[in-house]
Amino acid sequence: MNKTPLQLRSPYLIFVGDESRPTYAKTGKGVADWRPELCMGQLRLCNTAADLGLPDMPVATASQQGVGSLIVGTALVGGSIPDSWLDTLCEAAESGIDIVAGLHTRLNSIQVLRNAAKKGHSQLIDIRVPPEDIPVASGAKRTGKRLLTVGTDCALGKKYTALQLERDMRELGMDADFRASGQTGIMIAGTGIPIDCVIADFISGAAELLSPDNDPDHWDLIEGQGGIFHPGYAAVSHGLLIGSQADAFVVCHAAGRTQIEGWEAYSVPSIGEVIDRTIAVGSLTNTEIRCVGISVNTLSLGTDERDDYLAELASTYGLPCVDPMITGTKAIIQQLT
Amino acid sequence: MNKTPLQLRSPYLIFVGDESRPTYAKTGKGVADWRPELCMGQLRLCNTAADLGLPDMPVATASQQGVGSLIVGTALVGGSIPDSWLDTLCEAAESGIDIVAGLHTRLNSIQVLRNAAKKGHSQLIDIRVPPEDIPVASGAKRTGKRLLTVGTDCALGKKYTALQLERDMRELGMDADFRASGQTGIMIAGTGIPIDCVIADFISGAAELLSPDNDPDHWDLIEGQGGIFHPGYAAVSHGLLIGSQADAFVVCHAAGRTQIEGWEAYSVPSIGEVIDRTIAVGSLTNTEIRCVGISVNTLSLGTDERDDYLAELASTYGLPCVDPMITGTKAIIQQLT
Repeated sequence: MNKTPLQLRSPYLIFVGDESRPTYAKTGKGVADWRPELCMGQLRLCNTAADLGLPDMPVATASQQGVGSLIVGTALVGGSIPDSWLDTLCEAAESGIDIVAGLHTRLNSIQVLRNAAKKGHSQLIDIRVPPEDIPVASGAKRTGKRLLTVGTDCALGKKYTALQLERDMRELGMDADFRASGQTGIMIAGTGIPIDCVIADFISGAAELLSPDNDPDHWDLIEGQGGIFHPGYAAVSHGLLIGSQADAFVVCHAAGRTQIEGWEAYSVPSIGEVIDRTIAVGSLTNTEIRCVGISVNTLSLGTDERDDYLAELASTYGLPCVDPMITGTKAIIQQLT
Repeated sequence: MNKTPLQLRSPYLIFVGDESRPTYAKTGKGVADWRPELCMGQLRLCNTAADLGLPDMPVATASQQGVGSLIVGTALVGGSIPDSWLDTLCEAAESGIDIVAGLHTRLNSIQVLRNAAKKGHSQLIDIRVPPEDIPVASGAKRTGKRLLTVGTDCALGKKYTALQLERDMRELGMDADFRASGQTGIMIAGTGIPIDCVIADFISGAAELLSPDNDPDHWDLIEGQGGIFHPGYAAVSHGLLIGSQADAFVVCHAAGRTQIEGWEAYSVPSIGEVIDRTIAVGSLTNTEIRCVGISVNTLSLGTDERDDYLAELASTYGLPCVDPMITGTKAIIQQLT
């Protein structure tokens, strides 16, 4: 168990296993895309496995070159670890490389892997295990500034919006850090708290730990979770919002999505409803909270459609409206200064 | 670990230990007050221990008379189990009586107690351990009716309001069950889910399990937790509200309390704010949600003051306003039919 927020050792070797479907290798792809400087190579168990664009590298080479962590970059249905992976994972652990995974099966529950880690003095890091000593939120005001990405639903770009904001703000010379609240985010950032795995009473306390006191001009860019109108996950979203004490938030939306994914009896709320409720709830711990922009995943639209869609939203809400993967986020960043 | 909601075996022997201060024996007092028909006796380790008004009974007698569970009815600072209790608890476990506690120290972590339970084929039930197989909330509408008690703060009567509603509704011949979401409540009801100990993603799912499908005229009276404007515990309150799909709610308040207890920088919200926000949030899963009354803990007021206070609140909000321990809750129940 962890006594402090998770911290991963870089550089990374991304383990793709024998997964050929890119959607199932998206964790590894996320790390490779957003932290290329931390990724030394990829390890594929067969030629048909998905290619993340990193040099192929066996464990022996990775060990020689000083790789700190092997990151399991694929998600399997059921979240277990297939036997065909174990030899490779054990070899890495024995050679002193930490093993990092966010699967349902805990690495620490596998005896051969535990033995290998003991032999190699390496760590088995289960990203789904939150720190042990999270306090109840104090509500005390912290220094520094915070932006939270919120959503009209799950899985529509809250993490990537926060990451693109970090990239663009750093390019503009601003002092900003992405703060990961979910498993893939933690692998990308190398640190964070899996907020959905925390005990209920400590959700807002975990959010407070996630974005601690900082310099007055520093921005934490906090990865949102769930959705404030989500019938399954709203409690997490509320707790994260209240603990984050957000000064600013960006509403993330997927163009064309009308129903909550997996909860089709529920309509996606309007962006206006999300703005109003986020301000109402967030005001509890930060009366200055305001919406600074809208971030849309426009994958479902053509180029012309996209421009019209973004322009119309911008006019309706009087806010900059971007697709972070296409337009970047600088229009939103202008609102922060 | 539990695979289904907790279920306690009655009748009970309430263990008071050597605790002389009534406030620290309030769990035992709650069970004795609200479920006298389930309480066969009390077990005090010395004459100065608090008297709950039950027959004193040693373990041997309790065992002969068929006691099902020994309930640890005192809370200690730090929540541990003193050595001076162990002989008695072991004796009970060895004689086949289940041991039930909601202390920070898990009963199952104490080796001598585990041995005794194994020998006596009895169970060690840690009330703080939620069921293992809680799903994410589906948001699917359930049959039957539900009332949730919500609060302007913690510790002001949400549990006792729900219990008094159950007592009064049953007296009126209505079909109603108290649903416990906290530790003392679970001991009183003999079943329930400790909602604040559930993993974040499953809070609303736990609330759905807590008040399952029922007859059309049946009322679940759900014990609220925390407060929707509480800087530490609001996430739990939001999740419980959304998962409960409440048709009705009662706002609980403590007369004279102006600041959140333990969070003095935060003001207690007005009853009107709590009504409006509870309707706004609760509408997600039940558009018919409405406030049916106000329940005030008036301990801090004299009799005349109390009557004026309740009358003024009733007039301000146009709702029945009671102190459940003094006036009962029938004025509120009239709103339910």
